[in-house]
Amino acid sequence: MPANKAPSVAVVDWGTTRMRVWLVDEADKVLAERRGDDGLITAQAVGFSTILEGHLAAMGAPEALPVIICGMAGSRQGWLEAPYVTVPSPIDAILAGAISIPGQRRDIRIVPGLAQRQADAPDVMRGEETQLAGAGLPANGRHLVCMPGTHSKWVLAEDGTVAGFCTWPTGELFSVLAAHSILRHSLGEQPKPVTAGNPFFQDWCRRALAEGGDVTSRLFSIRAAGLLQDLQPDDAAACLSGLLIGGEIASANRRYGASAAPIVLIASGALATLYQAVLGLAGLAVRTVDADEAVRSGLIEAARENGMIAKSGVAA
Amino acid sequence: MPANKAPSVAVVDWGTTRMRVWLVDEADKVLAERRGDDGLITAQAVGFSTILEGHLAAMGAPEALPVIICGMAGSRQGWLEAPYVTVPSPIDAILAGAISIPGQRRDIRIVPGLAQRQADAPDVMRGEETQLAGAGLPANGRHLVCMPGTHSKWVLAEDGTVAGFCTWPTGELFSVLAAHSILRHSLGEQPKPVTAGNPFFQDWCRRALAEGGDVTSRLFSIRAAGLLQDLQPDDAAACLSGLLIGGEIASANRRYGASAAPIVLIASGALATLYQAVLGLAGLAVRTVDADEAVRSGLIEAARENGMIAKSGVAA
Repeated sequence: MPANKAPSVAVVDWGTTRMRVWLVDEADKVLAERRGDDGLITAQAVGFSTILEGHLAAMGAPEALPVIICGMAGSRQGWLEAPYVTVPSPIDAILAGAISIPGQRRDIRIVPGLAQRQADAPDVMRGEETQLAGAGLPANGRHLVCMPGTHSKWVLAEDGTVAGFCTWPTGELFSVLAAHSILRHSLGEQPKPVTAGNPFFQDWCRRALAEGGDVTSRLFSIRAAGLLQDLQPDDAAACLSGLLIGGEIASANRRYGASAAPIVLIASGALATLYQAVLGLAGLAVRTVDADEAVRSGLIEAARENGMIAKSGVAA
Repeated sequence: MPANKAPSVAVVDWGTTRMRVWLVDEADKVLAERRGDDGLITAQAVGFSTILEGHLAAMGAPEALPVIICGMAGSRQGWLEAPYVTVPSPIDAILAGAISIPGQRRDIRIVPGLAQRQADAPDVMRGEETQLAGAGLPANGRHLVCMPGTHSKWVLAEDGTVAGFCTWPTGELFSVLAAHSILRHSLGEQPKPVTAGNPFFQDWCRRALAEGGDVTSRLFSIRAAGLLQDLQPDDAAACLSGLLIGGEIASANRRYGASAAPIVLIASGALATLYQAVLGLAGLAVRTVDADEAVRSGLIEAARENGMIAKSGVAA
């Protein structure tokens, strides 16, 4: 951290298995960044305060620097439960509802997650609401937002309000099936990362897209293709990935219908590339927002909404 | 085995984890039965001949008694590979293609499995072809057959020919998700067996039926219902079961379309009851055939087709 710059807030994305901390100045510029494997699971054992203060000390953060947090640290199993905000809810109202952690020597708050309490479609999220808030969605109009991952979240935002959302456990299905189902014989122990250009990825994706999200009738075909068509392990992984991502997008598209505006994809790196490819195969327009930048922007916005930093944004 | 009755053939259903042996007389009557946990996996270690002869000796089978086998014993990892018969194929031609195990002191044959070599829907089965042959399907007409299990198989039979088939890994998805996904937190360690009368089973089944086999958008809802609606572990298991079985039936129905004749359900016990309930919820007529009886009848028919017992069936 340059000596002549002072941070105005620390923003923290604290998930189940990892955490990221950024120090941000009054002009919203990042002065320092740290990433650690000490997510919720580690923090439950070591202590949330100990881990956070350790990172802040290593970054040279001042003692009174306020901290805003999003993610699983606010769950019932986390540092302090930040009760879910029920949707529909305006995005800025979600951010403004951050709760304070009592008994700390600095101002530390946690952004609440979202709950959809619809009887036949209950759902929850923690962390993605902050990514969503930082994605630079237009204040007006109907926007469909895709946040892929272990538990992919799709959000329907209407005029700055979260109207509804749904979770597809695509990343988890891939790892659980690859490790524990009969498909482990097809995929092998260490399949290479799947690339969007793999023709098997694209073929199986198209099949899933054509079937409205029905993937269960295709899973065993991957095994059969190994027996009958000499499908190789890395290509089998590409089939499974294409099938599951294609299925997710077909299912989401069926649930939320077409959108006039491009789908907002909040993702980074290889995952962004795969989803861009599948959205393209589905004939859907897409605008990609980097996931790291989105969560950081959302956290800064949350700090602002909670009066932890000046509302004006960039200093005069 | 009564001393005054002599078996004419031993019929064996030899799967991955278990085997069943029946001694049958010339009137197709069962004289003796044994069940063991020495399926393919055990047999690969101990030896197929050793296990089979052990069971036959314990049942007092004569040395020259012929044996007909179906199931995974005929796979590449089995006793001897009985190459797949490619569909479409007449059912009796499948049975007639049993291969002989050389170098045995008795006549031992294995019924081949089926392969669907369609480029975009490869599939295989071993064992279910014999159940199908023993289900007493009418020789004419279009019949849809459901054989539920770890890997549920649906077969479209037309005028005594297997026209096509498809696998839904419903049982495997249930166990893998219950044990290894985030749903393990919802279902608990030892969920009670699901019953067809459970209202959660029925509700989630209806949801899956209404969505054409798209189940991935609903999986995480089971977790969310635990957090938001106080869903209890045994009911969460019922939700997952209803969702997966409902999804299978919706998907199969979409794939094969409605059938004039009732769906033939080849199943036993609790699984038969669950599938009958879901087929009922889907508004589909069903005729249930006991799975044990079906495989035994199919094996006897295979022995007859291969000239191991008299073609005439019941002795004069």
